[in-house]
Amino acid sequence: MSGAATGEKIVIVGLGLIGGSMAKALKQNTDCRVLGVDIDEDVLLDACSCGAIDGKAGKEDLQTADVVYLCVYPREALAFARDFGPLLKEGCILTDACGVKGEIAAGMEALSGTGKYVFVGGHPMAGKELNGFAESTPGLFAGASYLLTPCGAPDWAVEKVRGLAEKMGFGRVVLTDPKHHDREIAFTSQTPHVLACAYVMSPRCREHQGFSAGSYRDVSRVADINGALWSRLFLMNREALLDELDELTQNITLFREAIAREDEYRLKELLQTAGEIKRRYH
Amino acid sequence: MSGAATGEKIVIVGLGLIGGSMAKALKQNTDCRVLGVDIDEDVLLDACSCGAIDGKAGKEDLQTADVVYLCVYPREALAFARDFGPLLKEGCILTDACGVKGEIAAGMEALSGTGKYVFVGGHPMAGKELNGFAESTPGLFAGASYLLTPCGAPDWAVEKVRGLAEKMGFGRVVLTDPKHHDREIAFTSQTPHVLACAYVMSPRCREHQGFSAGSYRDVSRVADINGALWSRLFLMNREALLDELDELTQNITLFREAIAREDEYRLKELLQTAGEIKRRYH
Repeated sequence: MSGAATGEKIVIVGLGLIGGSMAKALKQNTDCRVLGVDIDEDVLLDACSCGAIDGKAGKEDLQTADVVYLCVYPREALAFARDFGPLLKEGCILTDACGVKGEIAAGMEALSGTGKYVFVGGHPMAGKELNGFAESTPGLFAGASYLLTPCGAPDWAVEKVRGLAEKMGFGRVVLTDPKHHDREIAFTSQTPHVLACAYVMSPRCREHQGFSAGSYRDVSRVADINGALWSRLFLMNREALLDELDELTQNITLFREAIAREDEYRLKELLQTAGEIKRRYH
Repeated sequence: MSGAATGEKIVIVGLGLIGGSMAKALKQNTDCRVLGVDIDEDVLLDACSCGAIDGKAGKEDLQTADVVYLCVYPREALAFARDFGPLLKEGCILTDACGVKGEIAAGMEALSGTGKYVFVGGHPMAGKELNGFAESTPGLFAGASYLLTPCGAPDWAVEKVRGLAEKMGFGRVVLTDPKHHDREIAFTSQTPHVLACAYVMSPRCREHQGFSAGSYRDVSRVADINGALWSRLFLMNREALLDELDELTQNITLFREAIAREDEYRLKELLQTAGEIKRRYH
Protein backbone atom coordinates (compact mmCIF):
# COMPACT_ATOMS: atom_id res chain seq x y z
CA MET A 1 0.00 0.00 0.00
CA SER A 2 3.01 2.31 -0.33
CA GLY A 3 5.62 3.45 -2.76
CA ALA A 4 4.73 3.07 -6.41
CA ALA A 5 1.50 5.02 -6.66
CA THR A 6 1.18 6.46 -10.13
CA GLY A 7 -1.50 9.09 -9.53
CA GLU A 8 -1.41 12.60 -8.25
CA LYS A 9 0.33 13.74 -5.15
CA ILE A 10 -2.02 14.64 -2.30
CA VAL A 11 -0.92 16.19 0.97
CA ILE A 12 -3.21 16.04 3.98
CA VAL A 13 -2.44 18.49 6.74
CA GLY A 14 -3.84 17.29 10.05
CA LEU A 15 -4.53 13.57 10.44
CA GLY A 16 -7.45 13.74 12.84
CA LEU A 17 -10.86 12.19 12.31
CA ILE A 18 -11.46 14.05 9.03
CA GLY A 19 -7.93 14.15 7.63
CA GLY A 20 -7.28 10.55 8.63
CA SER A 21 -10.52 9.40 7.03
CA MET A 22 -9.73 11.32 3.84
CA ALA A 23 -6.30 9.75 3.68
CA LYS A 24 -7.70 6.26 4.19
CA ALA A 25 -10.47 6.78 1.63
CA LEU A 26 -8.02 8.14 -0.96
CA LYS A 27 -5.60 5.29 -0.41
CA GLN A 28 -8.41 2.78 -0.66
CA ASN A 29 -10.15 4.18 -3.73
CA THR A 30 -7.54 5.98 -5.84
CA ASP A 31 -3.95 5.51 -6.97
CA CYS A 32 -2.94 8.91 -5.57
CA ARG A 33 0.22 9.22 -3.57
CA VAL A 34 -1.03 10.40 -0.16
CA LEU A 35 1.33 12.17 2.21
CA GLY A 36 0.61 13.54 5.65
CA VAL A 37 1.51 16.44 7.91
CA ASP A 38 0.74 16.37 11.63
CA ILE A 39 2.19 18.03 14.71
CA ASP A 40 2.03 14.66 16.46
CA GLU A 41 4.82 12.34 15.27
CA ASP A 42 3.07 9.33 16.78
CA VAL A 43 0.02 9.98 14.63
CA LEU A 44 2.23 10.16 11.53
CA LEU A 45 3.80 6.87 12.52
CA ASP A 46 0.41 5.23 13.08
CA ALA A 47 -0.84 6.57 9.75
CA CYS A 48 2.20 5.21 7.94
CA SER A 49 2.14 1.83 9.56
CA CYS A 50 -1.53 1.22 8.82
CA GLY A 51 -1.14 2.39 5.24
CA ALA A 52 -3.35 5.46 5.57
CA ILE A 53 -0.52 7.55 4.09
CA ASP A 54 2.48 6.75 1.97
CA GLY A 55 4.70 8.91 4.14
CA LYS A 56 5.32 12.23 5.82
CA ALA A 57 5.19 15.28 3.53
CA GLY A 58 8.41 17.27 3.43
CA LYS A 59 9.04 20.68 1.91
CA GLU A 60 9.63 19.29 -1.57
CA ASP A 61 6.37 17.34 -1.37
CA LEU A 62 4.53 20.58 -0.75
CA GLN A 63 6.32 22.10 -3.74
CA THR A 64 5.11 19.29 -6.01
CA ALA A 65 1.71 18.54 -4.50
CA ASP A 66 -1.33 18.55 -6.77
CA VAL A 67 -3.86 18.94 -3.98
CA VAL A 68 -3.40 19.98 -0.35
CA TYR A 69 -6.22 19.34 2.15
CA LEU A 70 -6.12 21.46 5.30
CA CYS A 71 -7.84 19.34 7.95
CA VAL A 72 -6.88 21.41 10.97
CA TYR A 73 -8.61 24.07 13.08
CA PRO A 74 -9.60 27.25 11.21
CA ARG A 75 -6.79 29.47 12.53
CA GLU A 76 -4.21 26.79 11.87
CA ALA A 77 -5.54 26.36 8.35
CA LEU A 78 -5.03 30.05 7.63
CA ALA A 79 -1.61 30.01 9.30
CA PHE A 80 -0.58 27.06 7.12
CA ALA A 81 -1.73 28.88 3.98
CA ARG A 82 0.20 31.96 5.04
CA ASP A 83 3.39 30.08 5.90
CA PHE A 84 3.45 27.36 3.25
CA GLY A 85 1.19 28.71 0.49
CA PRO A 86 4.12 30.42 -1.22
CA LEU A 87 5.79 26.98 -1.61
CA LEU A 88 2.90 25.45 -3.54
CA LYS A 89 3.24 25.08 -7.30
CA GLU A 90 1.11 26.89 -9.83
CA GLY A 91 -2.18 25.08 -10.23
CA CYS A 92 -1.92 23.27 -6.93
CA ILE A 93 -5.34 23.15 -5.33
CA LEU A 94 -5.48 24.17 -1.69
CA THR A 95 -8.69 23.26 0.08
CA ASP A 96 -9.82 23.13 3.69
CA ALA A 97 -12.32 21.27 5.84
CA CYS A 98 -13.53 24.00 8.20
CA GLY A 99 -17.15 23.97 9.30
CA VAL A 100 -17.51 27.75 8.91
CA LYS A 101 -16.58 29.34 5.60
CA GLY A 102 -16.97 33.13 5.78
CA GLU A 103 -13.92 33.81 7.94
CA ILE A 104 -11.82 31.29 5.99
CA ALA A 105 -12.85 32.87 2.68
CA ALA A 106 -11.94 36.33 3.97
CA GLY A 107 -8.62 35.09 5.33
CA MET A 108 -7.73 33.33 2.09
CA GLU A 109 -8.79 36.38 0.10
CA ALA A 110 -6.36 38.45 2.17
CA LEU A 111 -3.60 35.94 1.34
CA SER A 112 -4.29 35.89 -2.40
CA GLY A 113 -1.23 37.01 -4.29
CA THR A 114 1.10 35.40 -1.76
CA GLY A 115 0.98 32.08 -3.65
CA LYS A 116 0.26 30.54 -7.06
CA TYR A 117 -2.17 27.90 -5.78
CA VAL A 118 -5.93 27.92 -6.32
CA PHE A 119 -8.10 27.91 -3.19
CA VAL A 120 -11.42 26.06 -3.04
CA GLY A 121 -13.23 26.19 0.31
CA GLY A 122 -14.57 22.84 1.46
CA HIS A 123 -16.72 21.44 4.24
CA PRO A 124 -17.12 17.68 4.44
CA MET A 125 -20.41 17.22 6.34
CA ALA A 126 -19.37 14.19 8.28
CA GLY A 127 -18.17 13.44 11.74
CA LYS A 128 -18.83 11.40 14.79
CA GLU A 129 -18.83 11.83 18.54
CA LEU A 130 -15.20 10.81 18.88
CA ASN A 131 -12.11 12.52 17.48
CA GLY A 132 -8.62 11.77 16.36
CA PHE A 133 -6.81 9.55 13.89
CA ALA A 134 -7.71 6.42 15.84
CA GLU A 135 -11.38 7.09 15.02
CA SER A 136 -10.82 7.74 11.33
CA THR A 137 -12.25 5.34 8.80
CA PRO A 138 -12.34 5.24 4.99
CA GLY A 139 -16.14 4.91 5.08
CA LEU A 140 -16.76 8.09 7.11
CA PHE A 141 -18.03 10.06 4.13
CA ALA A 142 -20.31 7.43 2.60
CA GLY A 143 -23.32 9.26 1.26
CA ALA A 144 -22.50 12.54 3.03
CA SER A 145 -22.69 16.05 1.58
CA TYR A 146 -19.51 17.88 0.71
CA LEU A 147 -20.05 21.62 0.58
CA LEU A 148 -17.74 23.64 -1.65
CA THR A 149 -17.35 27.41 -1.66
CA PRO A 150 -15.26 28.03 -4.80
CA CYS A 151 -15.17 31.84 -4.33
CA GLY A 152 -14.01 32.41 -7.90
CA ALA A 153 -11.86 29.29 -8.31
CA PRO A 154 -11.83 28.04 -11.93
CA ASP A 155 -14.12 25.18 -12.92
CA TRP A 156 -11.31 22.70 -13.51
CA ALA A 157 -10.23 23.12 -9.88
CA VAL A 158 -13.76 22.66 -8.55
CA GLU A 159 -14.21 19.61 -10.75
CA LYS A 160 -10.97 18.09 -9.51
CA VAL A 161 -12.06 18.51 -5.87
CA ARG A 162 -15.45 17.09 -6.79
CA GLY A 163 -13.90 14.08 -8.50
CA LEU A 164 -11.76 13.27 -5.48
CA ALA A 165 -14.80 13.74 -3.21
CA GLU A 166 -16.75 11.20 -5.21
CA LYS A 167 -13.91 8.73 -4.89
CA MET A 168 -13.90 9.31 -1.13
CA GLY A 169 -17.52 8.19 -1.09
CA PHE A 170 -19.36 11.49 -0.67
CA GLY A 171 -22.97 11.25 -1.78
CA ARG A 172 -23.27 14.76 -3.10
CA VAL A 173 -21.22 17.85 -3.73
CA VAL A 174 -23.02 21.17 -3.21
CA LEU A 175 -21.60 24.45 -4.51
CA THR A 176 -22.52 27.51 -2.49
CA ASP A 177 -21.14 30.81 -1.23
CA PRO A 178 -19.68 31.30 2.24
CA LYS A 179 -22.52 33.46 3.54
CA HIS A 180 -25.30 31.08 2.56
CA HIS A 181 -23.20 28.17 3.80
CA ASP A 182 -22.73 29.73 7.20
CA ARG A 183 -26.42 30.62 7.65
CA GLU A 184 -27.53 27.10 6.81
CA ILE A 185 -24.84 25.50 8.93
CA ALA A 186 -25.87 27.64 11.91
CA PHE A 187 -29.23 25.90 11.60
CA THR A 188 -28.37 22.36 10.51
CA SER A 189 -25.27 21.79 12.61
CA GLN A 190 -24.35 24.47 15.13
CA THR A 191 -27.78 24.91 16.71
CA PRO A 192 -28.19 21.15 17.32
CA HIS A 193 -24.79 21.14 19.02
CA VAL A 194 -25.70 24.07 21.31
CA LEU A 195 -29.04 22.40 21.96
CA ALA A 196 -27.55 19.04 22.90
CA CYS A 197 -25.28 20.75 25.42
CA ALA A 198 -28.00 22.99 26.86
CA TYR A 199 -30.35 20.00 27.06
CA VAL A 200 -28.13 17.73 29.16
CA MET A 201 -27.56 20.56 31.64
CA SER A 202 -31.06 19.98 33.06
CA PRO A 203 -30.94 18.48 36.58
CA ARG A 204 -33.29 15.75 35.28
CA CYS A 205 -30.51 14.44 33.05
CA ARG A 206 -28.82 12.90 36.07
CA GLU A 207 -31.76 10.54 36.57
CA HIS A 208 -32.75 9.84 33.00
CA GLN A 209 -31.66 6.21 32.90
CA GLY A 210 -34.60 3.87 32.64
CA PHE A 211 -36.83 6.81 31.72
CA SER A 212 -35.34 7.59 28.36
CA ALA A 213 -35.54 6.25 24.84
CA GLY A 214 -34.84 7.41 21.31
CA SER A 215 -35.83 11.07 21.77
CA TYR A 216 -33.41 11.62 24.61
CA ARG A 217 -30.66 9.73 22.82
CA ASP A 218 -31.06 11.72 19.62
CA VAL A 219 -31.14 15.21 21.16
CA SER A 220 -28.26 14.51 23.53
CA ARG A 221 -26.06 12.65 21.03
CA VAL A 222 -23.65 15.49 20.28
CA ALA A 223 -23.43 16.91 23.83
CA ASP A 224 -19.84 15.71 24.29
CA ILE A 225 -17.85 17.60 21.67
CA ASN A 226 -14.41 19.05 21.22
CA GLY A 227 -14.81 22.30 23.17
CA ALA A 228 -11.76 24.03 21.72
CA LEU A 229 -12.88 23.41 18.13
CA TRP A 230 -16.57 24.10 18.56
CA SER A 231 -16.18 27.26 20.62
CA ARG A 232 -14.07 28.61 17.71
CA LEU A 233 -16.63 27.52 15.15
CA PHE A 234 -19.48 29.10 17.14
CA LEU A 235 -17.62 32.40 17.41
CA MET A 236 -16.62 32.37 13.74
CA ASN A 237 -20.32 32.19 12.88
CA ARG A 238 -21.51 34.42 15.67
CA GLU A 239 -24.21 36.47 13.96
CA ALA A 240 -25.88 33.64 12.07
CA LEU A 241 -25.79 31.40 15.13
CA LEU A 242 -27.24 34.08 17.41
CA ASP A 243 -30.07 34.61 14.89
CA GLU A 244 -30.74 30.92 14.81
CA LEU A 245 -30.71 30.52 18.60
CA ASP A 246 -33.11 33.45 18.88
CA GLU A 247 -35.38 31.92 16.27
CA LEU A 248 -35.36 28.65 18.19
CA THR A 249 -36.05 30.16 21.60
CA GLN A 250 -38.87 32.24 20.10
CA ASN A 251 -40.41 29.11 18.64
CA ILE A 252 -40.02 27.20 21.91
CA THR A 253 -41.75 30.18 23.55
CA LEU A 254 -44.74 29.79 21.19
CA PHE A 255 -45.17 26.27 22.57
CA ARG A 256 -44.47 27.42 26.10
CA GLU A 257 -47.18 30.07 25.96
CA ALA A 258 -49.78 27.74 24.47
CA ILE A 259 -49.03 25.19 27.20
CA ALA A 260 -49.06 27.83 29.95
CA ARG A 261 -52.53 29.08 28.99
CA GLU A 262 -53.74 25.52 28.30
CA ASP A 263 -54.59 26.46 24.73
CA GLU A 264 -55.06 23.03 23.19
CA TYR A 265 -56.26 24.44 19.88
CA ARG A 266 -53.14 26.56 19.44
CA LEU A 267 -50.92 23.68 20.51
CA LYS A 268 -52.45 21.40 17.87
CA GLU A 269 -51.99 24.16 15.32
CA LEU A 270 -48.29 24.50 16.18
CA LEU A 271 -47.79 20.74 16.05
CA GLN A 272 -49.55 20.65 12.70
CA THR A 273 -47.37 23.43 11.30
CA ALA A 274 -44.22 21.65 12.41
CA GLY A 275 -45.47 18.33 11.04
CA GLU A 276 -46.19 19.89 7.65
CA ILE A 277 -42.71 21.42 7.45
CA LYS A 278 -41.12 18.14 8.46
CA ARG A 279 -43.07 16.14 5.87
CA ARG A 280 -42.42 18.69 3.14
CA TYR A 281 -38.73 19.33 3.62
CA HIS A 282 -37.95 16.08 5.41
CA MET B 1 -52.37 -18.75 15.42
CA SER B 2 -55.97 -18.73 16.68
CA GLY B 3 -58.46 -20.73 18.70
CA ALA B 4 -57.00 -23.17 21.18
CA ALA B 5 -54.76 -20.93 23.28
CA THR B 6 -54.47 -22.37 26.76
CA GLY B 7 -53.11 -19.36 28.60
CA GLU B 8 -54.71 -16.33 30.13
CA LYS B 9 -57.19 -14.07 28.46
CA ILE B 10 -55.83 -10.68 27.51
CA VAL B 11 -57.93 -7.84 26.13
CA ILE B 12 -56.23 -4.98 24.31
CA VAL B 13 -58.27 -1.83 23.99
CA GLY B 14 -57.06 0.25 21.05
CA LEU B 15 -55.10 -1.47 18.30
CA GLY B 16 -52.88 1.39 17.24
CA LEU B 17 -49.09 1.32 17.08
CA ILE B 18 -48.71 0.37 20.76
CA GLY B 19 -51.77 -1.84 21.22
CA GLY B 20 -51.18 -3.58 17.90
CA SER B 21 -47.54 -4.21 18.75
CA MET B 22 -48.49 -5.57 22.19
CA ALA B 23 -51.02 -7.91 20.62
CA LYS B 24 -48.51 -9.16 18.06
CA ALA B 25 -45.78 -9.63 20.67
CA LEU B 26 -48.12 -11.51 23.02
CA LYS B 27 -49.37 -13.76 20.24
CA GLN B 28 -45.82 -14.43 19.14
CA ASN B 29 -44.28 -15.11 22.52
CA THR B 30 -47.00 -16.43 24.82
CA ASP B 31 -49.93 -18.82 24.70
CA CYS B 32 -52.34 -16.13 25.93
CA ARG B 33 -55.67 -15.69 24.22
CA VAL B 34 -55.49 -12.13 22.90
CA LEU B 35 -58.67 -10.24 22.09
CA GLY B 36 -59.05 -6.73 20.77
CA VAL B 37 -61.32 -3.72 21.08
CA ASP B 38 -61.18 -0.87 18.57
CA ILE B 39 -63.60 1.77 17.34
CA ASP B 40 -62.46 0.99 13.79
CA GLU B 41 -63.97 -2.28 12.54
CA ASP B 42 -61.48 -2.41 9.67
CA VAL B 43 -58.59 -2.41 12.12
CA LEU B 44 -60.19 -5.28 14.04
CA LEU B 45 -60.57 -7.17 10.78
CA ASP B 46 -56.94 -6.53 9.81
CA ALA B 47 -55.77 -7.59 13.25
CA CYS B 48 -57.79 -10.82 13.08
CA SER B 49 -56.73 -11.72 9.60
CA CYS B 50 -53.02 -11.27 10.29
CA GLY B 51 -53.26 -13.20 13.53
CA ALA B 52 -52.42 -10.27 15.82
CA ILE B 53 -55.56 -11.08 17.84
CA ASP B 54 -57.68 -14.16 18.27
CA GLY B 55 -60.86 -12.14 17.89
CA LYS B 56 -62.91 -9.15 18.96
CA ALA B 57 -63.54 -8.85 22.69
CA GLY B 58 -67.22 -8.88 23.62
CA LYS B 59 -68.85 -8.08 26.96
CA GLU B 60 -68.33 -11.61 28.31
CA ASP B 61 -64.65 -11.45 27.35
CA LEU B 62 -64.27 -8.34 29.48
CA GLN B 63 -66.00 -10.18 32.34
CA THR B 64 -63.52 -13.05 32.17
CA ALA B 65 -60.34 -11.18 31.11
CA ASP B 66 -57.21 -11.67 33.22
CA VAL B 67 -55.46 -8.54 31.98
CA VAL B 68 -56.83 -5.53 30.11
CA TYR B 69 -54.42 -3.14 28.38
CA LEU B 70 -55.79 0.34 27.65
CA CYS B 71 -53.84 1.51 24.62
CA VAL B 72 -55.96 4.56 23.81
CA TYR B 73 -55.69 8.28 24.49
CA PRO B 74 -55.68 9.29 28.17
CA ARG B 75 -59.28 10.53 28.33
CA GLU B 76 -60.55 7.49 26.50
CA ALA B 77 -58.60 5.24 28.86
CA LEU B 78 -60.32 6.81 31.86
CA ALA B 79 -63.70 6.70 30.10
CA PHE B 80 -63.20 2.99 29.39
CA ALA B 81 -62.33 2.33 33.04
CA ARG B 82 -65.42 4.25 34.13
CA ASP B 83 -67.77 2.52 31.68
CA PHE B 84 -66.42 -1.02 31.62
CA GLY B 85 -64.39 -1.28 34.84
CA PRO B 86 -67.47 -2.53 36.75
CA LEU B 87 -67.67 -5.51 34.36
CA LEU B 88 -64.13 -6.75 35.10
CA LYS B 89 -63.74 -9.73 37.41
CA GLU B 90 -62.07 -9.61 40.80
CA GLY B 91 -58.32 -9.81 40.33
CA CYS B 92 -58.40 -8.67 36.72
CA ILE B 93 -55.47 -6.37 36.09
CA LEU B 94 -56.29 -3.14 34.30
CA THR B 95 -53.28 -1.28 32.96
CA ASP B 96 -52.76 1.59 30.56
CA ALA B 97 -50.11 2.88 28.17
CA CYS B 98 -50.39 6.65 28.64
CA GLY B 99 -47.24 8.73 28.46
CA VAL B 100 -48.23 10.90 31.44
CA LYS B 101 -49.17 9.21 34.69
CA GLY B 102 -50.26 11.81 37.28
CA GLU B 103 -53.64 12.58 35.75
CA ILE B 104 -54.32 8.92 35.00
CA ALA B 105 -53.43 7.94 38.57
CA ALA B 106 -55.77 10.63 39.94
CA GLY B 107 -58.55 9.60 37.56
CA MET B 108 -58.21 5.93 38.45
CA GLU B 109 -58.08 6.77 42.14
CA ALA B 110 -61.39 8.61 41.74
CA LEU B 111 -62.87 5.48 40.12
CA SER B 112 -61.62 3.08 42.79
CA GLY B 113 -64.54 1.32 44.37
CA THR B 114 -66.48 1.24 41.10
CA GLY B 115 -64.84 -2.05 40.10
CA LYS B 116 -63.09 -5.11 41.53
CA TYR B 117 -60.08 -4.95 39.20
CA VAL B 118 -56.54 -3.95 40.22
CA PHE B 119 -55.05 -0.94 38.40
CA VAL B 120 -51.33 -0.75 37.54
CA GLY B 121 -50.24 2.35 35.60
CA GLY B 122 -47.95 1.59 32.68
CA HIS B 123 -45.89 3.48 30.13
CA PRO B 124 -44.16 1.48 27.42
CA MET B 125 -41.27 3.73 26.33
CA ALA B 126 -41.40 2.84 22.68
CA GLY B 127 -42.77 4.37 19.56
CA LYS B 128 -41.90 5.51 16.14
CA GLU B 129 -42.66 8.41 13.85
CA LEU B 130 -45.66 6.68 12.27
CA ASN B 131 -48.89 5.62 13.92
CA GLY B 132 -51.62 3.07 13.61
CA PHE B 133 -52.07 -0.68 13.46
CA ALA B 134 -50.38 -0.89 10.06
CA GLU B 135 -47.15 0.30 11.71
CA SER B 136 -47.32 -2.11 14.65
CA THR B 137 -44.73 -4.82 14.96
CA PRO B 138 -44.01 -7.53 17.55
CA GLY B 139 -40.43 -6.25 17.90
CA LEU B 140 -41.36 -2.65 18.80
CA PHE B 141 -40.46 -3.08 22.47
CA ALA B 142 -37.16 -4.92 22.07
CA GLY B 143 -34.86 -3.63 24.78
CA ALA B 144 -37.11 -0.68 25.70
CA SER B 145 -38.00 0.52 29.18
CA TYR B 146 -41.46 -0.15 30.55
CA LEU B 147 -42.34 2.25 33.35
CA LEU B 148 -44.86 1.07 35.93
CA THR B 149 -46.62 3.22 38.51
CA PRO B 150 -48.26 0.64 40.77
CA CYS B 151 -49.84 3.24 43.11
CA GLY B 152 -50.56 0.67 45.81
CA ALA B 153 -51.29 -2.30 43.54
CA PRO B 154 -50.30 -5.62 45.20
CA ASP B 155 -46.99 -7.23 44.27
CA TRP B 156 -48.57 -10.19 42.45
CA ALA B 157 -50.26 -7.77 40.04
CA VAL B 158 -47.06 -5.83 39.39
CA GLU B 159 -45.19 -9.09 38.86
CA LYS B 160 -47.77 -10.32 36.39
CA VAL B 161 -47.50 -7.12 34.35
CA ARG B 162 -43.72 -7.39 34.54
CA GLY B 163 -43.76 -11.01 33.38
CA LEU B 164 -45.89 -10.17 30.36
CA ALA B 165 -43.63 -7.17 29.61
CA GLU B 166 -40.59 -9.41 29.55
CA LYS B 167 -42.33 -11.73 27.13
CA MET B 168 -43.14 -8.75 24.91
CA GLY B 169 -39.42 -8.07 24.71
CA PHE B 170 -39.02 -5.08 27.01
CA GLY B 171 -35.44 -4.68 28.22
CA ARG B 172 -36.27 -3.35 31.64
CA VAL B 173 -39.20 -2.64 33.91
CA VAL B 174 -38.86 0.40 36.16
CA LEU B 175 -41.18 0.97 39.12
CA THR B 176 -41.79 4.60 40.01
CA ASP B 177 -44.46 6.99 41.22
CA PRO B 178 -46.53 9.19 38.91
CA LYS B 179 -44.94 12.45 39.98
CA HIS B 180 -41.36 11.34 39.46
CA HIS B 181 -42.38 9.66 36.20
CA ASP B 182 -43.93 12.84 34.86
CA ARG B 183 -40.97 15.03 35.78
CA GLU B 184 -38.50 12.72 34.08
CA ILE B 185 -40.70 12.24 31.03
CA ALA B 186 -41.01 16.01 30.65
CA PHE B 187 -37.24 15.97 30.19
CA THR B 188 -36.55 12.73 28.34
CA SER B 189 -39.50 12.71 25.96
CA GLN B 190 -41.75 15.77 25.95
CA THR B 191 -39.02 18.41 25.72
CA PRO B 192 -37.35 16.70 22.72
CA HIS B 193 -40.73 16.62 20.98
CA VAL B 194 -41.35 20.35 21.58
CA LEU B 195 -37.78 21.01 20.51
CA ALA B 196 -38.05 19.08 17.26
CA CYS B 197 -41.16 21.04 16.34
CA ALA B 198 -39.73 24.43 17.35
CA TYR B 199 -36.52 23.62 15.50
CA VAL B 200 -38.04 22.87 12.09
CA MET B 201 -40.00 26.13 12.26
CA SER B 202 -36.82 28.07 11.42
CA PRO B 203 -36.95 29.57 7.90
CA ARG B 204 -33.59 27.88 7.26
CA CYS B 205 -35.28 24.46 7.46
CA ARG B 206 -36.77 25.03 4.01
CA GLU B 207 -33.29 25.01 2.49
CA HIS B 208 -31.54 22.46 4.65
CA GLN B 209 -31.19 19.76 1.99
CA GLY B 210 -27.59 19.25 1.00
CA PHE B 211 -26.49 21.23 4.06
CA SER B 212 -27.59 18.78 6.70
CA ALA B 213 -26.32 15.59 8.24
CA GLY B 214 -26.82 13.57 11.40
CA SER B 215 -27.34 16.48 13.80
CA TYR B 216 -30.23 17.91 11.81
CA ARG B 217 -31.75 14.49 11.31
CA ASP B 218 -31.62 13.62 14.99
CA VAL B 219 -33.07 16.85 16.38
CA SER B 220 -35.84 17.02 13.78
CA ARG B 221 -36.74 13.33 13.85
CA VAL B 222 -39.88 13.65 15.97
CA ALA B 223 -41.18 16.92 14.46
CA ASP B 224 -44.09 15.17 12.72
CA ILE B 225 -46.19 13.76 15.52
CA ASN B 226 -49.82 13.06 16.29
CA GLY B 227 -50.96 16.56 17.30
CA ALA B 228 -54.17 15.47 19.00
CA LEU B 229 -52.34 12.99 21.24
CA TRP B 230 -49.29 15.09 22.03
CA SER B 231 -51.14 18.31 22.75
CA ARG B 232 -53.11 16.32 25.37
CA LEU B 233 -49.94 14.80 26.81
CA PHE B 234 -48.24 18.22 27.00
CA LEU B 235 -51.22 19.73 28.82
CA MET B 236 -51.53 16.77 31.17
CA ASN B 237 -47.95 17.41 32.27
CA ARG B 238 -48.12 21.17 32.08
CA GLU B 239 -46.14 22.22 35.14
CA ALA B 240 -43.26 19.79 34.74
CA LEU B 241 -43.00 20.53 31.03
CA LEU B 242 -43.01 24.30 31.56
CA ASP B 243 -40.23 23.90 34.15
CA GLU B 244 -38.22 21.85 31.71
CA LEU B 245 -38.71 24.24 28.80
CA ASP B 246 -37.65 27.12 31.05
CA GLU B 247 -34.59 25.19 32.15
CA LEU B 248 -33.70 24.53 28.53
CA THR B 249 -34.16 28.09 27.31
CA GLN B 250 -32.12 29.35 30.28
CA ASN B 251 -29.32 27.00 29.34
CA ILE B 252 -29.50 27.98 25.67
CA THR B 253 -29.28 31.58 26.89
CA LEU B 254 -26.02 30.79 28.73
CA PHE B 255 -24.54 29.77 25.39
CA ARG B 256 -26.19 32.68 23.62
CA GLU B 257 -24.67 35.20 26.02
CA ALA B 258 -21.19 33.71 25.83
CA ILE B 259 -21.37 33.79 22.02
CA ALA B 260 -22.76 37.34 21.98
CA ARG B 261 -19.90 38.70 24.07
CA GLU B 262 -17.36 36.50 22.25
CA ASP B 263 -16.35 34.90 25.52
CA GLU B 264 -14.40 31.89 24.25
CA TYR B 265 -13.29 30.89 27.74
CA ARG B 266 -16.86 30.71 29.04
CA LEU B 267 -17.99 28.88 25.93
CA LYS B 268 -15.33 26.22 26.40
CA GLU B 269 -16.35 25.95 30.04
CA LEU B 270 -20.00 25.38 29.09
CA LEU B 271 -19.05 22.80 26.47
CA GLN B 272 -16.86 21.06 29.01
CA THR B 273 -19.65 20.97 31.58
CA ALA B 274 -22.07 19.49 29.06
CA GLY B 275 -19.48 16.96 27.88
CA GLU B 276 -18.87 15.81 31.45
CA ILE B 277 -22.57 15.32 32.11
CA LYS B 278 -22.98 13.43 28.85
CA ARG B 279 -20.04 11.12 29.58
CA ARG B 280 -21.15 10.52 33.16
CA TYR B 281 -24.84 9.89 32.67
CA HIS B 282 -24.63 8.86 29.02
